[in-house]
Amino acid sequence: MFQLHPRLAQDTFRLGDWPLCRLLLMNDVRFPWLILVPRQKQVSEISELAARQQQLLMTEIMAAERVLRTAVPVDKINIGALGNIVPQLHVHIVARQHNDAAWPAPVWGHGAAIPYNKTQRQRIMPKLQQAIDRITW
Amino acid sequence: MFQLHPRLAQDTFRLGDWPLCRLLLMNDVRFPWLILVPRQKQVSEISELAARQQQLLMTEIMAAERVLRTAVPVDKINIGALGNIVPQLHVHIVARQHNDAAWPAPVWGHGAAIPYNKTQRQRIMPKLQQAIDRITW
Repeated sequence: MFQLHPRLAQDTFRLGDWPLCRLLLMNDVRFPWLILVPRQKQVSEISELAARQQQLLMTEIMAAERVLRTAVPVDKINIGALGNIVPQLHVHIVARQHNDAAWPAPVWGHGAAIPYNKTQRQRIMPKLQQAIDRITW
Repeated sequence: MFQLHPRLAQDTFRLGDWPLCRLLLMNDVRFPWLILVPRQKQVSEISELAARQQQLLMTEIMAAERVLRTAVPVDKINIGALGNIVPQLHVHIVARQHNDAAWPAPVWGHGAAIPYNKTQRQRIMPKLQQAIDRITW
């Protein structure tokens, strides 16, 4: 059975399940930052997925980007599959702005996350949820 | 007509052309590091490619990973599409090792590249080329 890695569970809010992946929001108010986690057991690399799942993952990454573009301002999208620290396969889709806290550096390993406060969370969650509701499979 | 961004041309060696992308080797001996550049005009985001090209890009990313796994030791593959500095769409596929110069941090923005010397280049290029020759489309 699929179980979200405890570190991912701790660092994120759950947004929902798509055909292949669980969709998460990183709890870091510095960057609108989604994470896709294929609901598979013990997969660390995209190459371990079946070819059909790899293609579906690309489709879901593009859908996550559309969610971000609908919900928040975006100057550039950053996409990454690293997994050097958390071994469970997960893909980052990050909305970058030219004046964000790390620009133009990558967000990974850049300072410490600043968790959303209640007001900030109540502002972004409905926007993301509305954008997610527009995605059809 | 497709033209490789001068910064990418300067920082890499050309390995060949695949159906969608030009395949490059980053000139940084610290990490075996491939770059795929779709041979398209003025594309900055994967989402700007047609859906069929997005799927082909995923296929070529997986092929680049196979090339690395055939040619060099790999503990983890890191994949990233950032483009915060070089606006031409390009995807990084990096072979990471637990004892490499940046582990477990991302390679992007980590110190300065160390160019291959002639001996090092003559060692890795045939290995990569042989691995590339095994890929069929």
